[in-house]
Amino acid sequence: MLDFDFLRNICVASRAKIVLLVLDGLGGLSREEGGKTELETAFTPNLDALATKGMVGLINPVGPGVTPGSGPAHLALFGYDPVRYQIGRGVLEALGIGFDLKDRDVAARANFATVDAQGLVSDRRAGRLATEKCIELCGLLRRIKLDDVELFVEPVKEHRFVVVFRGSDLSDHLTESDPQKVGLPPCEVKATRPKSARTARIVNEFVRQAHEILANHHPANAVLLRGFAQHPKLPTIPEIYGLRAAAIAVYPMYRGLAKLAGMSVLTTGTTVADELATLAEQYTSYDYFFIHVKGTDTAGEDGDFARKVQVIEEVDAQLPTLLQLNPDVVVVTGDHSTPALLRSHSWHPVPFLLYSRWCRADAAREFGETACASGALGTFPAVNIMGLALANALRLTKFGA
Amino acid sequence: MLDFDFLRNICVASRAKIVLLVLDGLGGLSREEGGKTELETAFTPNLDALATKGMVGLINPVGPGVTPGSGPAHLALFGYDPVRYQIGRGVLEALGIGFDLKDRDVAARANFATVDAQGLVSDRRAGRLATEKCIELCGLLRRIKLDDVELFVEPVKEHRFVVVFRGSDLSDHLTESDPQKVGLPPCEVKATRPKSARTARIVNEFVRQAHEILANHHPANAVLLRGFAQHPKLPTIPEIYGLRAAAIAVYPMYRGLAKLAGMSVLTTGTTVADELATLAEQYTSYDYFFIHVKGTDTAGEDGDFARKVQVIEEVDAQLPTLLQLNPDVVVVTGDHSTPALLRSHSWHPVPFLLYSRWCRADAAREFGETACASGALGTFPAVNIMGLALANALRLTKFGA
Repeated sequence: MLDFDFLRNICVASRAKIVLLVLDGLGGLSREEGGKTELETAFTPNLDALATKGMVGLINPVGPGVTPGSGPAHLALFGYDPVRYQIGRGVLEALGIGFDLKDRDVAARANFATVDAQGLVSDRRAGRLATEKCIELCGLLRRIKLDDVELFVEPVKEHRFVVVFRGSDLSDHLTESDPQKVGLPPCEVKATRPKSARTARIVNEFVRQAHEILANHHPANAVLLRGFAQHPKLPTIPEIYGLRAAAIAVYPMYRGLAKLAGMSVLTTGTTVADELATLAEQYTSYDYFFIHVKGTDTAGEDGDFARKVQVIEEVDAQLPTLLQLNPDVVVVTGDHSTPALLRSHSWHPVPFLLYSRWCRADAAREFGETACASGALGTFPAVNIMGLALANALRLTKFGA
Repeated sequence: MLDFDFLRNICVASRAKIVLLVLDGLGGLSREEGGKTELETAFTPNLDALATKGMVGLINPVGPGVTPGSGPAHLALFGYDPVRYQIGRGVLEALGIGFDLKDRDVAARANFATVDAQGLVSDRRAGRLATEKCIELCGLLRRIKLDDVELFVEPVKEHRFVVVFRGSDLSDHLTESDPQKVGLPPCEVKATRPKSARTARIVNEFVRQAHEILANHHPANAVLLRGFAQHPKLPTIPEIYGLRAAAIAVYPMYRGLAKLAGMSVLTTGTTVADELATLAEQYTSYDYFFIHVKGTDTAGEDGDFARKVQVIEEVDAQLPTLLQLNPDVVVVTGDHSTPALLRSHSWHPVPFLLYSRWCRADAAREFGETACASGALGTFPAVNIMGLALANALRLTKFGA
C-alpha cells in the first residue's frame, strides 16, 4: 500500500472529477448452487454498458476473510488503511448526526434496550423503538447530572442514540456496557488504561441514573453503551490529494465518516434520485463525490433477496443522470458484501467497476460477481481504489525521474 | 497480511470443522508445450465436482518466484508468515521423530554421506542407506563423548538422522557442514555470532569423532550436518484461533511442523485410505484437520510424471470418504509445486480449492493449474488461507462497527 506522503507528493492540480458510487453491502451470494447473486439477478443495462466500457474486479475491504463493519469498510474506500485507522463507533455516530464534537469529548454509541425482572438483557434494541420515542426518552436522560461533566444525549434513529461526555481529562480507553448478547446483564464499564478511571466512574454513574429514569419505560428500560471514542485526527482527502470532496448520503453514519475524511456533507433527499439530483446541483463545486446508497445493505440484512435486486435496479435506472454529467472517473462498488442468504455483512470480496477515458477496458460485458472475478483488476485491497481513481483522473504525476 | 492479534480478536466460538488436505508438491508442469500438468492429466472426477461447487485459485507459498522448502511452505498453509517465522530443519526433524526437545537444545538435521579417498563428498545420501543401517550407525555415534554436553543421535529414515546437543549456553547461529554439492569436502562449522563460538567447536569435535568411527563403514563413512536450530516458540493454532487442531501425516517432518503449530499429531497408517480412516475416527474430537499426502512430492522429485498422476488419482478416489463427513470447509491444495519435469520443488504457484456452503462458487469446472489461474481467488499468498477458511466456517466476527 502506498502511504499518504507518497501520494501527496505525486498529486497534481486538475479539474478532473471523480464520482464514487457506493451501494452499501453490494456483494452477494446465489441462493442455490450454480445460481446468480443479487447483482447478477438484477436487470442492469446501464451498469453492464459501463462495465463493457470500463474495467472490473473485486475488492477486499480489510483483508481476505475479514467481514468489515461499515466504518472500516468506508475508510478503506476513501483510501485509509482500515487496520491502522480505527475509529470508535461513538465518534462516527456523533459526527453523523451533525453533533459538534470537541477535541476532548468522549462519545459513545448507545442503544435503548430491554432488561427483564432479573436485570438481564432480553432485547438489545428495545423492539427497534420508534424514533419519536427515542427522541422523547433522550429528553428524559438529559436531566442526568454528573459532577464537572457536561452531558449530551442525542437521538439518532429507532433505538439508537449518542451520549457525549464533555469535561477536562476525559479519556476513551473504556470497556463497553453492551454485553452483545441477550441473557446477560449490562456490563460495568471499566478503564483499560489508568487515565480513564475517572471517565469510567462518570459513565457508570450515567448508566445508573439512566436506569432509574427508564425503570417504567418498558421495553426501553435500559441503555447499552459501546464504542467509546474521542475525535481522531485523520489526514483529510482535500489535504492529501488536493480534492474538494463532497458526500451525498442519507444515513448519519456515512455522513459522519465522510466528514472525518474531510468531505463536505451535502444536504440531500432520501431517494437515489434525490441523491443524484444533489450531485447534479453541486457538480461544479467539488472534484470528488462520494454517493452512498443504503437500501442494498438493508435488504441484505433483512434476508430480502428480491428487494436487494430491486434497489440495484433502481440505481441502474438512475445511472444515466450521473453519467450525463460526464465525470472523468466513475467508480461503482460496495463497502462490503451483505448477501441476503447470510442476512449480515460478510467477508466476500465486493464487485468493483471503474470507468474513465483512460482505464484500459477489459473483457467484462456485465457487472456481477462472476464477471468481476475475471476482471482485469483481479481481487485487490479496497485501500488502492483512491490511487486508481486519481490516476484515471490524470491527477497523479510520474514517480521518480 | 493480518497479524495474529487482529485475527485472535475476531475469532468466535463455533463447532464448524475445517479440513485442509495437502498433496505435497501438487503443482506441476506439462511435459510438452500446450500439454497438461500432472493434476490436469489425472482423472479426478471428485476433485472436479468439488471445484465446480467451490472456488479455486493459485497460492504463492512464500512469494512470487520463491521455491519453498517444506518447512516454510507448510507454515504458510498454517497461517504463519514464512519469512517472519523461520524454523531450523534440525528442530523440525527432531519434533517429527517425537524427540523431546528442551528449550535450549541445539538440534541438527544430519545425513550419512560418502566421501572419497580425497575426503570429497561423492554421495550426500550414502546411496540412500537402508533405515536399519542408519539405526545401527546412530548407535555407534552415541559413543562420542563431548565435554559438558549431552549428545543424542537419533535415526529418522534411510540416510537421515538427527543430532541434538544439550548443555548450558549453546546457541544455534552456525554455518552448515553439508557442502550441498558433491566434489567438495564437508565444511567446517563456524559461528555466525560470537555467542555460538563454543557450540561450533563442540559440533566440529562431534564431526571429527564421527568420521573416525565411520571410517570403515563405506558408503556411510561421513556425516553432513545442517539446519542447526533451537526450539522456536510459535503462537499456536488453538491459542490464536480457538481451534482444536489435529494432524494426520505419515512423514516425521510434517508431523513435527504440525506439532510446532499446536496440533495434536494422530497415529495413522501409511496410505491415503489409512489417513482418511483416521480422519473419520477422530472427526468429532477436533475442529481443524491437516492431512498430508507425501506421494505426489516424492514422485515429482523422482521425475516420475505418471506416478504423480497415479497418486493424485488415488487421492481423488478416496475423497468421498472425506466428503462424507460433511466438513464445513474443505481445502485441497499443495505446500508447493514439484513438477516431475524439474525433479525438484519449484516456485510455481500451487492449485488451490476451497469449498464451503458460503464460498461463492466461481466458474471453474475442474481442478487444475489452468482452471485455477482463472479462479475467483486469483493468485494469492498462502498465508491468507487460514483467514479464508475461518471466514467460510463462519468462525470470524465483524471487524469494527
